[in-house]
Amino acid sequence: MKPAALIFDVFGTLVDWRGSVAQAVTAALGPDLPLPAEAFADRWRALYDPAMDPIRRGVRAYQPLDVLHRENLDRVLADLGLADRLDAAGTAALARCWERLDPWPDVPAGLRAIHEQALVAPCSNGSIALMVRLARHADLAWDTVLGADFACDYKPAPAVYRASCAALGLDPARVMMVAAHNADLHAARAEGLQTAFVPRPLEHGPGQTVDLEPESSWTLVARDMGALADRLKAL
Amino acid sequence: MKPAALIFDVFGTLVDWRGSVAQAVTAALGPDLPLPAEAFADRWRALYDPAMDPIRRGVRAYQPLDVLHRENLDRVLADLGLADRLDAAGTAALARCWERLDPWPDVPAGLRAIHEQALVAPCSNGSIALMVRLARHADLAWDTVLGADFACDYKPAPAVYRASCAALGLDPARVMMVAAHNADLHAARAEGLQTAFVPRPLEHGPGQTVDLEPESSWTLVARDMGALADRLKAL
Repeated sequence: MKPAALIFDVFGTLVDWRGSVAQAVTAALGPDLPLPAEAFADRWRALYDPAMDPIRRGVRAYQPLDVLHRENLDRVLADLGLADRLDAAGTAALARCWERLDPWPDVPAGLRAIHEQALVAPCSNGSIALMVRLARHADLAWDTVLGADFACDYKPAPAVYRASCAALGLDPARVMMVAAHNADLHAARAEGLQTAFVPRPLEHGPGQTVDLEPESSWTLVARDMGALADRLKAL
Repeated sequence: MKPAALIFDVFGTLVDWRGSVAQAVTAALGPDLPLPAEAFADRWRALYDPAMDPIRRGVRAYQPLDVLHRENLDRVLADLGLADRLDAAGTAALARCWERLDPWPDVPAGLRAIHEQALVAPCSNGSIALMVRLARHADLAWDTVLGADFACDYKPAPAVYRASCAALGLDPARVMMVAAHNADLHAARAEGLQTAFVPRPLEHGPGQTVDLEPESSWTLVARDMGALADRLKAL
C-alpha cells in the first residue's frame, strides 16, 4: 500500500551532523583544539542519547533537545578545558549549530520528489524550533514538523511514532518511517508503520561500523532520497 | 521590533470558508436544498464555537476540530431533514471539505512574501491533519503547523498562543498574530504577542457586520497579505 505520509529521521538520515558540527566547532573555537573537531562532534553527540534517557524513563520532565544540546555542550567544553574559550553568547550560538546542519547532497531534491507524492514531516528528536530553522537552512520541504516536541517524549518511545501518525489523521499502516538507523525502524514497525531504510555509511565518519546494512526486511530499502522517491512512484 | 515569526488565523483570515463550504455542500447534496448553500455553511459554522466551548472549559477532553466538524455536520443535516441524502462515505467526505477551502486571492503570494522575511505558521483551531491538507490545496507556505492540536486547547485559550510561541523558541514579543478577527488579536495581545489586523469584509457574505474595522490599536493593520508583507519590510 502506497503510504499517504512519510515521516523522517533527520540527524544522520537527512543531514550530516558530524561534518557540520565539526565545522561549527572549528569556526567557534579555532583550529588549535586538543582533539580533531570531528572527535569533538562525536563526544557531543555521545551525550545525546544518555541525556534523553531520564526523560524517556519519566524521571525528568520533557525538555526540548535544544536544552539537552546546550547542557551537553557545556559538559564537553568543561571536560576538554575549553569553557573559557567562549563567552555566553558564543556558547549559546555554538549550541544552536544543530539548526545549521548541511543536508546530504541527495536530500533537497529527493525530499521534494517525495513531497509530490505524499505528506512529509520530520519525526525527529529535534525540537520544532530547531527543525523549522534547520529546514530553512537545509532546504527541507516539510508539510509540518512532528516528532519529539509534539509527543513530549523521545524516540524510540512508542508515543512519538503514534502521535505523529495521529497528528496526520492517518492509521500507522498508511505512514512510512524513513531512517538510516535500524533501531528507529524497529520501533516504528512495532507501532504498525511501514519502514524505509536509507543507509548513510559516512554518518559517523569513514570508520563507521553500525547501520551499514538493513538489519531486517524493511518495507523499502533505497540508496538515497531520490531512489526512495522512485521506489514510491512504482508502488 | 520586527517579528521573527508570524502566526496566522486561517478560517476567514486566509481562506474563504463560507464560499468554499457552500460549493462543497452544493456538490454533495445537489442544488435542491431547503435553504441557500451559503446559509447551510453559516449554520454549520454557527455550531463551531459552541462545540469548542466544553473543551475550553475542561468538561470535555480535547478532540481535534475534524471530530467537531463531523458532529456539527450530522446535526445540521438532521435539523434540515437531509441526513438520508448522503451515505456514510459521502457524509465523511463532506465533513472534510474544510481541507479544501479556497484562499483569498492575495494569500498565496502574500504569504510567500512574508515567508521570505520571517517564520510563518498557522495558529488555527484546525487540526494538524486538516491544516497540512488545506495548505496543499490553498498553496500556503508554512514552516510548520501550530495552534489547537499542539496545545490541545482551542483559541482564544491563552495556552494556544503561548504554546505556539514556545514551540518556535521565541518570546511572545517577537511573534506577531495575524487575524481578521479582533477577538483573536485581543487574546494574543494579552499573552504578549504583536498583532496584525487584516480585514476580510466578505468572510460572512455581503451583509457582514462584524470585524469590518480594527477595534484597537493593533501593531499593524494591512488591507491584505501582500500589503502586510510590505509593511513588514519597512520595519
